[in-house]
Amino acid sequence: MNMVQEHYTLAPEMLRKIDAYWRAANYLSVGQIYLYDNPLLRRPLELSDVKHMLLGHWGTTPGQNFIYAHLNRIIKQYDLDMIYVSGPGHGGPSVVANTYLEGTYSEIYPEISRDEAGLRKLFIQFSFPGGIPSHASPECPGSIHEGGELGYSLSHSFGAVFDNPDLIVACVVGDGEAETGPLATAWHSNKFLNPANDGAVLPILHLNGYKIANPTVLARIEHEELDQLIRGYGWTPHFVEGDDPEEMHEAMAATLDSCIEQIQAIQHDAREFGNMTRPRWPMIVLKSPKGWTGPKVVDGVPIEGTFHAHQVPLSDPAKHPEHLQMLEDWLRSYRPDELFDDAGRLRPDIAELAPTGTRRMGANPHANGGMLLRELKMPNYRDYAIDVSPRGVMGIGDTHAMGPFIRDIIELNAEQMNFRVFGPDETASNGLEAVFDVTSRQWVARTQSNDEFLAPAGRVLEMLSEHQCQGWLEGYLLTGRHGLFNCYEAFVHIVDSMFNQHAKWLKVTNGLPWRHKIASLNYLLASHVWRQDHNGFTHQDPGFVDLVVNKKASVVRVYLPPDTNCLLSVMDHCLRSRHYVNVVIAGKHPAPQWLSITAAEKHCADGIGIWDWASNDDGGEPDVVMACCGDVPTLETLAAVSILREHLPELKVRVVNIVDLMKLQPHNEHPHGLADPGFDALFTKDKPVIFAFHAYPWLIHRLTYRRTNHENFHVRGYKEEGTITTPFDMTVLNDLDRFHLVMDVIDRVPQTGKKGQTLKRQLIDKLAEHRQYICKNGRDMPEIRDWRWEGK
Amino acid sequence: MNMVQEHYTLAPEMLRKIDAYWRAANYLSVGQIYLYDNPLLRRPLELSDVKHMLLGHWGTTPGQNFIYAHLNRIIKQYDLDMIYVSGPGHGGPSVVANTYLEGTYSEIYPEISRDEAGLRKLFIQFSFPGGIPSHASPECPGSIHEGGELGYSLSHSFGAVFDNPDLIVACVVGDGEAETGPLATAWHSNKFLNPANDGAVLPILHLNGYKIANPTVLARIEHEELDQLIRGYGWTPHFVEGDDPEEMHEAMAATLDSCIEQIQAIQHDAREFGNMTRPRWPMIVLKSPKGWTGPKVVDGVPIEGTFHAHQVPLSDPAKHPEHLQMLEDWLRSYRPDELFDDAGRLRPDIAELAPTGTRRMGANPHANGGMLLRELKMPNYRDYAIDVSPRGVMGIGDTHAMGPFIRDIIELNAEQMNFRVFGPDETASNGLEAVFDVTSRQWVARTQSNDEFLAPAGRVLEMLSEHQCQGWLEGYLLTGRHGLFNCYEAFVHIVDSMFNQHAKWLKVTNGLPWRHKIASLNYLLASHVWRQDHNGFTHQDPGFVDLVVNKKASVVRVYLPPDTNCLLSVMDHCLRSRHYVNVVIAGKHPAPQWLSITAAEKHCADGIGIWDWASNDDGGEPDVVMACCGDVPTLETLAAVSILREHLPELKVRVVNIVDLMKLQPHNEHPHGLADPGFDALFTKDKPVIFAFHAYPWLIHRLTYRRTNHENFHVRGYKEEGTITTPFDMTVLNDLDRFHLVMDVIDRVPQTGKKGQTLKRQLIDKLAEHRQYICKNGRDMPEIRDWRWEGK
Ligand SMILES: Cc1ncc(C[n+]2csc(CCOP(=O)(O)OP(=O)(O)O)c2C)c(N)n1
Ligand SMILES: Cc1ncc(C[n+]2csc(CCOP(=O)(O)OP(=O)(O)O)c2C)c(N)n1
Ligand SMILES: [Mg+2]
Ligand SMILES: [Mg+2]
Repeated sequence: MNMVQEHYTLAPEMLRKIDAYWRAANYLSVGQIYLYDNPLLRRPLELSDVKHMLLGHWGTTPGQNFIYAHLNRIIKQYDLDMIYVSGPGHGGPSVVANTYLEGTYSEIYPEISRDEAGLRKLFIQFSFPGGIPSHASPECPGSIHEGGELGYSLSHSFGAVFDNPDLIVACVVGDGEAETGPLATAWHSNKFLNPANDGAVLPILHLNGYKIANPTVLARIEHEELDQLIRGYGWTPHFVEGDDPEEMHEAMAATLDSCIEQIQAIQHDAREFGNMTRPRWPMIVLKSPKGWTGPKVVDGVPIEGTFHAHQVPLSDPAKHPEHLQMLEDWLRSYRPDELFDDAGRLRPDIAELAPTGTRRMGANPHANGGMLLRELKMPNYRDYAIDVSPRGVMGIGDTHAMGPFIRDIIELNAEQMNFRVFGPDETASNGLEAVFDVTSRQWVARTQSNDEFLAPAGRVLEMLSEHQCQGWLEGYLLTGRHGLFNCYEAFVHIVDSMFNQHAKWLKVTNGLPWRHKIASLNYLLASHVWRQDHNGFTHQDPGFVDLVVNKKASVVRVYLPPDTNCLLSVMDHCLRSRHYVNVVIAGKHPAPQWLSITAAEKHCADGIGIWDWASNDDGGEPDVVMACCGDVPTLETLAAVSILREHLPELKVRVVNIVDLMKLQPHNEHPHGLADPGFDALFTKDKPVIFAFHAYPWLIHRLTYRRTNHENFHVRGYKEEGTITTPFDMTVLNDLDRFHLVMDVIDRVPQTGKKGQTLKRQLIDKLAEHRQYICKNGRDMPEIRDWRWEGK
Repeated sequence: MNMVQEHYTLAPEMLRKIDAYWRAANYLSVGQIYLYDNPLLRRPLELSDVKHMLLGHWGTTPGQNFIYAHLNRIIKQYDLDMIYVSGPGHGGPSVVANTYLEGTYSEIYPEISRDEAGLRKLFIQFSFPGGIPSHASPECPGSIHEGGELGYSLSHSFGAVFDNPDLIVACVVGDGEAETGPLATAWHSNKFLNPANDGAVLPILHLNGYKIANPTVLARIEHEELDQLIRGYGWTPHFVEGDDPEEMHEAMAATLDSCIEQIQAIQHDAREFGNMTRPRWPMIVLKSPKGWTGPKVVDGVPIEGTFHAHQVPLSDPAKHPEHLQMLEDWLRSYRPDELFDDAGRLRPDIAELAPTGTRRMGANPHANGGMLLRELKMPNYRDYAIDVSPRGVMGIGDTHAMGPFIRDIIELNAEQMNFRVFGPDETASNGLEAVFDVTSRQWVARTQSNDEFLAPAGRVLEMLSEHQCQGWLEGYLLTGRHGLFNCYEAFVHIVDSMFNQHAKWLKVTNGLPWRHKIASLNYLLASHVWRQDHNGFTHQDPGFVDLVVNKKASVVRVYLPPDTNCLLSVMDHCLRSRHYVNVVIAGKHPAPQWLSITAAEKHCADGIGIWDWASNDDGGEPDVVMACCGDVPTLETLAAVSILREHLPELKVRVVNIVDLMKLQPHNEHPHGLADPGFDALFTKDKPVIFAFHAYPWLIHRLTYRRTNHENFHVRGYKEEGTITTPFDMTVLNDLDRFHLVMDVIDRVPQTGKKGQTLKRQLIDKLAEHRQYICKNGRDMPEIRDWRWEGK
């Protein structure tokens, strides 16, 4: 289905140039995979010119080179602000080759110079120890998407264009990648894109027919079905199909012109005439052979146009001497002598295909988002503080109380349009309803009269896909903006692997001085394990933090504010921070409040501290340390303390609260970690520590096993006992409740003696009474519901 | 777009019956959410009849009740073998009500009897302490899909019908659920379904327009687009749309008849005439109001047909007395007196709508798959053993060597068709290519002449979606079959949350005697962190096991076989096991082999043991314990031992290898855990332990922190340092290599004295030499590549 036209888009000279450019990129790609020396084939290829380990992925590369060359042309023609997202980022040779050809690579890495010596280094470094990875990795200029784990290219692309009205992201989607869940739903992102205020994504479905060892689904359905699928997703498809380079150049050029003109027309219509009906944005289906222009048949096996082209087609020239000749023929088929001058530099008449300066996709600042990062304008979070008198007063729910703070951040940054809230249909459910005082959910699909808080432009993006929320936010951050992802704690596991990849990106970019720091990725995990009143066991999983702390200490932070004022202080800190992943876990249900804003501020700055007002060790050595981390554990700990006060008043109890989980790690493992003396000063060297923790208890052991007093740490936390029950019963099921905590103290502190044993028996009876009561009444006993802190 | 027809499908009597049945289910649903007493409204409703905490989800429920009633009719009419999957499983009141009405509920839970007393208990228990959760949870008969975490209903349904030619799964997909990634790609499952050997899935897209607080995307695109989308996914849509019950009953009935007839025609065509062209299976779009038949307006806010109907429409009768009357009116609108007899039992003329016996969806044995489980026929795994002489001989790659074992399992069970291998396009890449000697990838999309191992029927299912692999396999296992999921280690994180949910399902069903045990979910994680030669950092993450061990010890097992014979023994064990999640991590690259099959068998049965042949403590007390877990750590440990032998021959070294990770946990925490004396006998009470571990090192600390000698444990593992480099360099980057291990010994065993210090300096030089060598040559030094174990 090539576009055969009367009138050709490409003048012969442009056709020649674009083809030469493509050949140059292909040549450099093959060179990267294979060549150790002899980069310009100035002499016959020898085995010693070939690397020992042949690594990388050829199959996707020529198609991506083809696309890149054509994008270069239209960028110049229309003076576009465009970046490139490579879904099948394992085509690393392509993005490296192209950024090298356009000059950005050598500007960043001067040793990879634009001459024969540089070419040699360019080739060697690829997939080589001390060199660069084989993907569109952070080391490659122009990349905001490594693409190792497939599926997120479209979400990232949309994230990049939100609030970037002049930006177009050309997003290559692998036809294998398109089978992943995240990618399959990401097509619907077009329901959330505002044609006036946002930019555009031009998806290019790279229908090369295969993945690693299989054909792809989209390549093996009927043409009509694919057309329907794309239209059903709300796009207008344009098919470019074939394998004859000349015809394909013409078809691709004409199609790209048409797509850009459609995009510009849509934007014009929205911006000049206020037409906000959802556009059917154009997209391209590029159907070309996998491993196009590579070896056709090797050892009798067809390669080009099959999945055998996926990685390295000629895999062992050392053992198959004839492969060496085939490799040479393959390389020479691109006619390198016509492409590079004597010095080894791309000939100027070819090079001029590419745009210049920051129009080059490798040099576009959007792809190094930190360059464009503007500070978030922040209201003073102290203005949202709640009054905590008497101590223990019931709040309205910590996230609800924080809502106005987020609302005002939205308002303050309304003009610079660089802050968004993302959530899978839970922003209200997670307690942030205040944001809808000043903004809406952005939504360009159909609306109805009784809809609430939906508008073509809004600062909140909600789709029932954690993958989309995470992917959009990542793309938004990577292009230099700020944001917050609010999510149920249990279901953030859906994006575990995306978190992993983003943390890896942050780690690697930390080591690249030319990459500017970006805003942190902030998670607000409300609706947490302890309060899943409507849902139960499926919604109870606090294990995300276990995963988070596996990543490099330089990029991860975990906060568990015990009350509203602490949450305000923590969130303020997170939103100002750079290049981290911050995980904030907070409650949304009414709960007692502990710290004034001044106290909260100090407590959060310290990250951990003794709560004197709750302790009775009077600055001396306690008999027992009651540690707590998380809102519900803090409540239960304080209730336990009040029982101890009443029944065992002579017992010296110290209460330590932890906001910043990383304080517990040794300071040589995490920058926030306490040094041992500081740790010992809090937890003593030898006293029992009864530790009530929000998440799985063993995480505390993992963080503290090197500490002096670790042996005396006795941790209670969620141990996978859950269901729908009362809030207090959830803690009972997991032995985290006040009664168990007191019994733990009695068991661990022998000097409580007979009095202790008597109390313990009473508490056992209490637990039985609790059970009976809730099974009859369906809610907690009044003494639990109405318990209030009575101390100072 | 109701189906208005001349000829009505439903006779008046049937129409009356089906509507009554629907009203009964709706009545019971509202009753479950609200009523504490007065279940049949035999007296005016009082506040004390209403529960204190009102929990649950009304919105989805009436639509699901409508569907269930209609399915009952067609099951009887066509004598169908059908089960029901509730995507929005938060409509728990619906499945509970319906299985109660059809009688299955009381058969399993006799105390929930079919009379007024039983009704009262049915109502109280819902979302109540000591009762049942609010979802289609395992406690509910007929459920194989809880639906708490949305997105997997279609994948589960397809998993259920593979190799179940007579089964039809009616799968309700929430329109919110449909926005998730996993669900969005699961529509393509129809490319993998064999119409002759597999059953059918009848998806019913429940287009009630809303999710929690937003409209849904699919409800707000144009009708034509939705039609195209569904056709593009390869289905034939049938729209049933409206809110008038009578018209809707007729439309639904006619549509269901038509769908069943289409399904039967397709199957007939394939089974009788061998027509294997991919069918366009029918599906239904049911467009009805959210919260249909519930309160229309409450406190001036429209409820029915809006997202406000999602949870509990009348949320606090205690505070709003007028809500009590509305609740009573609502309940009475279903005319309970017409539905239930004096005893409180559904009137027989209505009850007869439902099928009987195992045709009832709550009693269908497929939904209690363990009932149908047939043993897997297993070849003797010893027949696949490799000869390990001399010890240390290079194997062909452990998974490659195991391939024939899996191949023959496939063959032995070809007839009983109850074993499948699932993978995201990686079955060959993960080393299981041998399976293609006897089977193919099942694929009913278009094929081409040069395709390899694709056929309409095959035992391997490959789609580039980890979600689909996991979801299909879960559905397959839950309906009583066996399987294996092979996956890259890093990308199994994509299904972290699905693993979580499945582990929860196993935990809960363990406590339900009427639920029969099912086969374990087996992961083979090949292509692991240490050998990502083609890919690098994005592909390096061994953290899945951290997540796995968070789940209940009763359902999780983790194995790290060090060589081929151990892998065979472990896999044999896993495939025979029941009701676990087994994680097996193995290599695919050529690697040295350590144990004969006899030795391997014993070692794997023990799960952990001293390798005498590698130790020189002669059964006495060693100076140091070298522990290793995982194939690469074992190799490096043995190489370290050989260095120690040569340079510090007087040092007494004990080598302990761990296959079964759970052996390390205390025996009171995991059934596999060693008791302390056994543990101390292996690891000593006070000698340094240098532990080389496959995954993140802190996991070992977390498992062993209570052990006597834990203080002397020094663990090396992956610490998030990776890239594309040589295999040995990966270990160097993470200090897990032989040289670092030896240096660790020297640092920890002072008696190595001067000799030790000299050796340490040599090793530091070695590491520098290594670095230089690989950066020049791109592969490991010959002494590393060619190293062989020289001991006995
Ligand atoms: C989520 C995920 N699963 C599996 C893989 C392993 N993998 C690497 S490349 C590839 C095939 C990609 O096919 P496609 O997207 O069509 O890319 P192309 O054909 O352009 O190489 C697969 C399955 C991966 N990278 N990510
Ligand atoms: C993966 C996931 N994310 C978020 C939620 C929270 N949640 C519960 S119900 C719901 C809306 C479901 O809407 P829909 O599928 O349309 O079901 P229905 O309208 O029938 O209730 C959401 C977002 C969830 N259960 N699972
Ligand atoms: Mg492809
Ligand atoms: Mg819905």
